[in-house]
Amino acid sequence: MADLVRLRLDISYDGTEFSGWAIQPDRRTVAGALTQALTVLLRQPVQLVVAGRTDAGVHAQGQVAHVDVEVGALRALAPRNHSADQDEAARTGLVRRLAGVLPPDVRVRSVRPAPDGFDARFSALRRHYRYRVGTCEWGVEPRDRRFVLARRRALDTDAMARAAAALIGLHDFAAFCRPREGASTTRELQDLRVAPTDHPAGEVRIDVVADAFCHSMVRALVGSLLAVGEAREPIERPAAILAAGQRTSAIHVAPAHGLKLLAVDYPPDAELARRAELTRARRA
Amino acid sequence: MADLVRLRLDISYDGTEFSGWAIQPDRRTVAGALTQALTVLLRQPVQLVVAGRTDAGVHAQGQVAHVDVEVGALRALAPRNHSADQDEAARTGLVRRLAGVLPPDVRVRSVRPAPDGFDARFSALRRHYRYRVGTCEWGVEPRDRRFVLARRRALDTDAMARAAAALIGLHDFAAFCRPREGASTTRELQDLRVAPTDHPAGEVRIDVVADAFCHSMVRALVGSLLAVGEAREPIERPAAILAAGQRTSAIHVAPAHGLKLLAVDYPPDAELARRAELTRARRA
Repeated sequence: MADLVRLRLDISYDGTEFSGWAIQPDRRTVAGALTQALTVLLRQPVQLVVAGRTDAGVHAQGQVAHVDVEVGALRALAPRNHSADQDEAARTGLVRRLAGVLPPDVRVRSVRPAPDGFDARFSALRRHYRYRVGTCEWGVEPRDRRFVLARRRALDTDAMARAAAALIGLHDFAAFCRPREGASTTRELQDLRVAPTDHPAGEVRIDVVADAFCHSMVRALVGSLLAVGEAREPIERPAAILAAGQRTSAIHVAPAHGLKLLAVDYPPDAELARRAELTRARRA
Repeated sequence: MADLVRLRLDISYDGTEFSGWAIQPDRRTVAGALTQALTVLLRQPVQLVVAGRTDAGVHAQGQVAHVDVEVGALRALAPRNHSADQDEAARTGLVRRLAGVLPPDVRVRSVRPAPDGFDARFSALRRHYRYRVGTCEWGVEPRDRRFVLARRRALDTDAMARAAAALIGLHDFAAFCRPREGASTTRELQDLRVAPTDHPAGEVRIDVVADAFCHSMVRALVGSLLAVGEAREPIERPAAILAAGQRTSAIHVAPAHGLKLLAVDYPPDAELARRAELTRARRA
């Protein structure tokens, strides 16, 4: 069997014109575009493993994935007669070639050797998401319109912050998740922060941090907070939804385009393998 | 004749999907979209006068226009039984309604009564433009890709800055302008600044300030500086082009999408009318 090397890819994308991360037949997806580019450049089939499987329309600035590639195929991308580190030159060559062949709405910002035990999905400690809401009466700056939900009305951010604080902790978030057969919906919501910004156009940011998220969880959390911020529902409502533990039609899932995966945190290298084992055991 | 009031509009747009500012038959233009929205809301034909007639694909953050409207038509937009200033309520109502009917790639950020003597075009003292170039090898952040030219190579910004400095001043910029019958091409280039930024993805900004610009002038200036920055041409070349005084095929016009109209400066209210007279006399 050929020698394999695991590479860590740091990725950004504008999710507007993608049907989400995961490959689907006949759909334009982020993983589809990346897999195709890597397969062509490395002349071998590749399989990407990702930290955050974002939904259709959701963006990413700090997405992380890994891929295992044959050492020989990678080295072929280094410039000939390159005197310095051949493998580093090959990875730089891969970044440059990816920039040339990928569509401009997805970028691979770096390709690095993954440390031992690294798994983009299972080694991750936590994911950071940000949701942006425009509150200004004239709308959202045109350059931001693909990334900010235009509500065009003031939000009671104090009420939202109080409602948000009641959700933090280790809970079964079934009420905020689209259910999946046999999958746990228990997550540790580590932070859920609502803050007005000094953005001249009027913008509220909702920053969400958890060990992991189940399907549509961030957008359901944001939707329930927006209902509080617009006084359509009382401050206690999101906590009551959580406690009820069942997904109901009362849940408003906020539109995808305001959401962005900001960053993924990993433990120090020495703890990567153990963290991956732990996550796998918990999810099973 | 009906009472007219002159309104000052502050406007932003993403120029990507517009064929520029100026109305053209069967083309989607910024003035076309705004004129249609205002005509519908005010139930009267309107004519916009603008500070910077941007080309197809060029963006604006601080565009300024004026429009003369019938007082009665404007007041009809104030909420009924509004107790405070009726005219201010009407202008706020217009901003809100424009936000609802305009496409999201153009926004009217404010509607204010224009001071006496104000003319969006002729009263302007100077226009500020910014051109953004991405130098990072992996390209441009996806969210910025409509607003930043992706060159993916380092630029010698010192050389560009030296070449730029030689162009500042009152000159005939015929060599950098698409000629128009009978129109002067003498302009006062007040600043032309080339600066690397601390943008994590690597970005060079070219800030350009002049009393006014002739057609394609900013992009021709930027194109000649990029040739210097990439060592395709010597530092002295842009000044030599200026001195030659004639548009040649050697001029590289930089792509439109990196360019944005940042702001327009006006003199104090008391000098608006005199400034407009002066500008009109100079252009004739």
